[in-house]
Amino acid sequence: MLKLYYAAGTCALASHITLEEVGADYSTVRIDFKTSQQNSPEYLAINPKGRIPSLITERGILTETPAMLAYIAQCYPEARLAPFDDAFAFAQVQSFNSFLCSSLHVAHSHRMRGHRWAYEQSSFADMQRKVPESVGNHYRLIEQYMLRGPWVMGDSFTICDPYLFTMAQWMEGDGVDPSDFPKVKDHRQRMSERATVQRAIAEETR
Amino acid sequence: MLKLYYAAGTCALASHITLEEVGADYSTVRIDFKTSQQNSPEYLAINPKGRIPSLITERGILTETPAMLAYIAQCYPEARLAPFDDAFAFAQVQSFNSFLCSSLHVAHSHRMRGHRWAYEQSSFADMQRKVPESVGNHYRLIEQYMLRGPWVMGDSFTICDPYLFTMAQWMEGDGVDPSDFPKVKDHRQRMSERATVQRAIAEETR
Repeated sequence: MLKLYYAAGTCALASHITLEEVGADYSTVRIDFKTSQQNSPEYLAINPKGRIPSLITERGILTETPAMLAYIAQCYPEARLAPFDDAFAFAQVQSFNSFLCSSLHVAHSHRMRGHRWAYEQSSFADMQRKVPESVGNHYRLIEQYMLRGPWVMGDSFTICDPYLFTMAQWMEGDGVDPSDFPKVKDHRQRMSERATVQRAIAEETR
Repeated sequence: MLKLYYAAGTCALASHITLEEVGADYSTVRIDFKTSQQNSPEYLAINPKGRIPSLITERGILTETPAMLAYIAQCYPEARLAPFDDAFAFAQVQSFNSFLCSSLHVAHSHRMRGHRWAYEQSSFADMQRKVPESVGNHYRLIEQYMLRGPWVMGDSFTICDPYLFTMAQWMEGDGVDPSDFPKVKDHRQRMSERATVQRAIAEETR
């Protein structure tokens, strides 16, 4: 039995959807960012980084979305969410997810988490001004070079798809117009029609 | 035959060391950041992101260090650099490498690449001031919770080790005192004594 610690509207949704996709036996625990619950002693004992998500497994605790997504896929091979037996194809999956965590998510984080990397309010405001451009530049790369369609890796649905969908939910908030990226927009629509996605979102927003 | 595009002093060193560790048949191509060669049309045709490293394989081009490291390990299973047959252990390797790319490397990048996330010189200067603190906070987590010793994952040398070593080379430049993190410092020393590490560095600095 897996247990997912998540907060609503965060990248934890990618793991939540993936747990639904594989039909995992899992439970969830909601962490409230408004009361900084991620920095409570109880949560820091689970994840000393004070970040979401965390996945409790029978072997121990896992953090970092790309690692959790690949773990869930590897635990449920019949769902075929990652091509573990093809080193190159698996590396392409990993490369995409690594780009999301280290570039796209980071660009997005400068809208509300500027204090991680600077001290001054004026810097935070400057960072916020740049978010539409920096996030948009990443979507341009995804649109032009990465998203094959209908799914990120082409005909096969993989762990890249819940992750891209999760970040694409933030486009409007980041000042990026989805219409500028028709393939990403189509992908988001296609994802939103899946029962797994609807179940995960319903639980997080209830 | 693999071909690694690298620039001296960058995270490409992690892949370079890993190629040495597995005894790969590979060649390297140096990209000069001083002349912005990473943004030349020739290099953008290889990696549209304009980033280092890139790995040319017989199946195509791979980018993003965590993906490349796992790929190299999976192509040379006899070197046992990642526990692919143990989903949880492999996820722990991936979690560490994901933390390095999305948190530690990102904190470091605010010293010289502030223009990615802001417009103003005053913001860049503010970001630079915070680098010792933000990078140091990440090393505190590594020291206290992640680095098991003697290697990152304990007794087994894995793809986490070249990656941590590569970033630890930047500590002094980031204003972080290695003496504050004795386990990281020991790890760095242990790594620097390996012939594989010495060969990779010798080639990059010749």
